[in-house]
This record gives sequence, structure tokens and C-alpha cells, in this order.
Amino acid sequence: MGRTGRRPGNQDTREAILAAARTAFAERGIDGASIRLIAAGAGVDPALVHHYFGTKDQLFLAAMRAPMDPAEIIPPILAGGLDGLGERLVATMLSVWDSPVGESAVALLRSAVSNEQVAAMMREFVVNRILKRIVKELHLDPVDGLLRSGLVASQVAGLIMMRYVIRVEPVASADIPTLAAMVGPTIQRYLTGPVPEADNDAGNEAGDEARRKVKR
Amino acid sequence: MGRTGRRPGNQDTREAILAAARTAFAERGIDGASIRLIAAGAGVDPALVHHYFGTKDQLFLAAMRAPMDPAEIIPPILAGGLDGLGERLVATMLSVWDSPVGESAVALLRSAVSNEQVAAMMREFVVNRILKRIVKELHLDPVDGLLRSGLVASQVAGLIMMRYVIRVEPVASADIPTLAAMVGPTIQRYLTGPVPEADNDAGNEAGDEARRKVKR
Repeated sequence: MGRTGRRPGNQDTREAILAAARTAFAERGIDGASIRLIAAGAGVDPALVHHYFGTKDQLFLAAMRAPMDPAEIIPPILAGGLDGLGERLVATMLSVWDSPVGESAVALLRSAVSNEQVAAMMREFVVNRILKRIVKELHLDPVDGLLRSGLVASQVAGLIMMRYVIRVEPVASADIPTLAAMVGPTIQRYLTGPVPEADNDAGNEAGDEARRKVKR
Repeated sequence: MGRTGRRPGNQDTREAILAAARTAFAERGIDGASIRLIAAGAGVDPALVHHYFGTKDQLFLAAMRAPMDPAEIIPPILAGGLDGLGERLVATMLSVWDSPVGESAVALLRSAVSNEQVAAMMREFVVNRILKRIVKELHLDPVDGLLRSGLVASQVAGLIMMRYVIRVEPVASADIPTLAAMVGPTIQRYLTGPVPEADNDAGNEAGDEARRKVKR
């Protein structure tokens, strides 16, 4: 058993580690929470955490009950470069969600929407393990790259909502090539099209706001 | 009290009517469920339902705990015609969700994602009171109009998810003009751009599937 091929181990210990991981990841993020901290939270040795769950990213995915590892899905999509990336991304995402794995993915999305701790973990994951990877792999401008990739995520998430969660027809039963042809150019434009000047202002405003808060 | 300006009435009776309405709307849709049926389900006179909640659409919105009536928001957006519609739609939607009403709207979205009955009602509402209205008002081709408007809904829903529910930065704090400038053209293209041939095939496939099911 165990998606990672690791030893299943004692069920109570596993659950204690996962609970400590959820708390730590939600509070400190993927990069801020250490295996050492999580192990301490669960009252076990760090080596046992690695033994049961593998790397920190693998533990994170297990703690989110993620049915798939984006680290395996995204690189092949990006490997082809920007040319045709939009259609490729939509077609691949829909193939995964149409597969048996999709049902667990819908369950995860439901829990992210209804549970703030899961939402915090998903936010962390989307930004640090998906969006930043897209920005880096595609050599996007770091200033507007996160806005671009965030809008890509918004379209993909919305398509998933309409097709698998709310199930609005004909989006729910349209074939993948049709949706890839219609939605692909959206993804393409978010990644390569113009970004209005106001974008930088928005970033600055958020920064100003943060600075104002610090000053008070 | 009461958003509709109607008399608040007996709280237990109101709740009984709302519960009967939720069941009826989820099972039969907005157009299939009658006030008469809902009144019977609640054990009250139909006139009392009208007295408390107004029209069937108003009852539907109350049953969904909808914080706003799309019938008031959408017509002004569509009134300007297709020219600049995308940016107008994004800017208006974000203004509403940025306003105090947005918090209740997020609560409704959460419950639609976690509760199948609410999802069924939202599906009904999105298709019959939003998408079909867009198709009609903009004189879209009835064959592909629902796919077009469904994709519009997917982008709007995904933007709302990222900005207000998962709160992924910088989408969460970007200013409205920036998002309208970047997402508006997506909406515009879904409404006016090309639809691949495969679309009709997808529709036919769904039809074929339905027919196959009937034949068995």
C-alpha cells in the first residue's frame, strides 16, 4: 500500500505525523515547515517521518490527500516550451481530471473551499510548487510572472469547477479537444500577452499597504 | 427586515417554506418546481409563499441564501452590447465581490462546492437565469451559445476562487482595472471568437450517449 511505495507503518503514528504536518504547513508554508518541526509535533523521530513519507514534498501531498503529484504532471507540459503550451496544458489537465484520479481531486478541491486550513495549504502549494515553477521554467518576468501564472490557475480552476463540481452543460460533457481549442488561447495569452501598466501599481499598492501596516 | 422588503412573518413557517423550496428546486429545477408544489411541501397556502418571498425567482434566491440578485447586476452589463463587454463584465463582477456582499457570496460558493443540493441549485441558476439570458440578450447562436457562456462562467468562477477563496497572490490583491484589462479579452473571445467544429461533435456525442441510454 501507500502511493509512495513506502512502508505503511503504524496507522496511529502515520496519522499523528499527517496531523502535525497539516498544522505546520498551514502555519508556516511548505518552505517554512521542517521535517524536524513536524516530527517534534508528532512526538516521533525525523527519520521515521522520512521513512514513512519520503521527501517533504511527498509528505505535503500526503497531508493534503493529493491524488497526484504535480511535479510529475507539469514538467512534460512545460518541456515543449511556449509554443502550443495553452492547448497542451488544458488537454493534459482535463485528461487527468477525467481519469479515475479526478474523483479524489474533486474531493480535495471541495475540502480546500470549505476548510481554511486546507485552503492555506493549497494556496502554498499552488504558489510555491506550481506557479513559481511555471515562472521559472518559462523564464517569465519575475515581476508579472506570478500574475500571469495566477490567471492561468484561475482559468484552469474555473474550468474544473464548471466541468466537475457544478457540472454546467455543455462544459461538463464537451470533448477535450474542443475545450483545449477554446481555452488554450486564454492560457497562451495570459503567459505571453501584454500586462497593463497598472499591474506594477497593483503590486506597489500591496507593498505600500504592507509597509503602512508595519509603520503603525 | 428581509431583503425583498416583504413581511418577515413567522420564522418557523418561513424556514419550512425555504426547506421545501430547496428540495423542490434541487429535484425539479427552477422552471419545473412550482410555488404550488413548494407550498404543498411546506403545508401552507401558495398565497403565503408569495406573500413572504415574492416571485418564484426571489424565493429561489432566498432558498440559496444568495446575497444578490443577478437579475439586477447582469442587464446593465449586457445593455452596452458586445463592445467592451468582457472588461465591463469582469470589472462589475469584481466590484460586487469586493463589496460587503462578497463575503456572503463566498459563503454561498463554499456551500455549492461542498453540498450537492446547493450545487444542483446553483447549476440550475447559472444555466437558466444567467447563461441563457446572456445567450438571448447577445443574440448568440443557440447551438454554441451555451458553450460560449459556460466558458465565460468558468473564467469568472475561477477568478473568484483564486481571488476570494484560495486567495492566491497577486491575483487576490491586484486592482480591478488590471484584472479587467487582462481577463476581459478572455470573456470577449469566448463570446465572439471561433468555436471549433468539434463542438458540434461534442454536442452530438452527448446526444448520442443520451440516446444510447434511452435505447438500453
